[in-house]
Amino acid sequence: MNRKITFYHAPNSRSGGTFALLEELSADYELHLVNLKAGESRRPDYRAINPMGKVPAIRHGEVLITEQPAIFMYLADLYAEAGLAPAIGDPLRGAYLRWLVFYGSCFEPALVDRSLNREPAPPSKSPYGSWEDVINTLQLQLAKGPYMLGERFTAADVLWGGALHWATLFKLVPETPQISAYIDRVITRPAMQRVAARDADYLAQQAA
Amino acid sequence: MNRKITFYHAPNSRSGGTFALLEELSADYELHLVNLKAGESRRPDYRAINPMGKVPAIRHGEVLITEQPAIFMYLADLYAEAGLAPAIGDPLRGAYLRWLVFYGSCFEPALVDRSLNREPAPPSKSPYGSWEDVINTLQLQLAKGPYMLGERFTAADVLWGGALHWATLFKLVPETPQISAYIDRVITRPAMQRVAARDADYLAQQAA
Repeated sequence: MNRKITFYHAPNSRSGGTFALLEELSADYELHLVNLKAGESRRPDYRAINPMGKVPAIRHGEVLITEQPAIFMYLADLYAEAGLAPAIGDPLRGAYLRWLVFYGSCFEPALVDRSLNREPAPPSKSPYGSWEDVINTLQLQLAKGPYMLGERFTAADVLWGGALHWATLFKLVPETPQISAYIDRVITRPAMQRVAARDADYLAQQAA
Repeated sequence: MNRKITFYHAPNSRSGGTFALLEELSADYELHLVNLKAGESRRPDYRAINPMGKVPAIRHGEVLITEQPAIFMYLADLYAEAGLAPAIGDPLRGAYLRWLVFYGSCFEPALVDRSLNREPAPPSKSPYGSWEDVINTLQLQLAKGPYMLGERFTAADVLWGGALHWATLFKLVPETPQISAYIDRVITRPAMQRVAARDADYLAQQAA
């Protein structure tokens, strides 16, 4: 099977997670830069790829995939030999899916409300309850360490390490010793460092 | 492998989706009722199962899984013989993951803002952009019909059919002919009808 991936990426955006994962997987991919400031993500040619007008998106043959947790699940299973996805039947598979989904369903909505100083929705409506629920649940999981699922480094860490990195930079998530150590463990990986350097170059190109 | 599932459910709540899926899969499961009105989901014994204090949650042996899209992925792969999950390598797998994640990452946050009459977050922060983005993207996908992924009925339809049903009842999602026909196609299935009847009974028990 041809595993070549086309990757739609905007430097310094949420799609950095997918960029890091592609590097961690040593995936065969071609990167297409999307210039958010120039409004490229909202133009019809990009809307034909992702009608939501956002990055990341990937194409594999005729298959288009959007939504970062879905992209992570898809890619880590496609490049299974990298060992970043517990396989179906592995006792870690459930927690792996749970924490990838939790990122998009609970953490991001909670972070948006927090960054806007908005009250969470009432519990019967809110997907996440309270900010404290989210942070406590996350901290309980990180306590299993050193990685999110315990001893094994997985694609979930690529997503969470990067996301917690920028969320602490923006002072949205507290830099507890546990959280800081976790972030360091992830972002010092060679693939993460390569991606950060390349993103800085792309950003300079787009600004030029 | 023992595939017995323990299912934590509150009648007339979001966990109805998981209830319907377990029936569609003819899964081996034991149902534990959680009384939301009595505050049971927020008590320490339930927090030990899901620290977020919400339903659904499932347990499979020692594995605890929360977040409805993750539970769907896990169960439909576990009971693969029911044919509700395109397998890894199937060309529909990408869209399947995308639409399960989209439900929690885009649709629910958009629905919460809409039900509270809140403005969406600015595009750089929002996980979903605008309400119109969400509805347009959903309608483009439903146009592939009769099911979300085209000809094949999958677990994604169990989630979306039920969710669109209550979202139209609450007048949050427009009842276009396309959306109404899709909802009818899903909720008239015998498993969905069984679950609706049992939920009505459970609700009456909890109210007694």
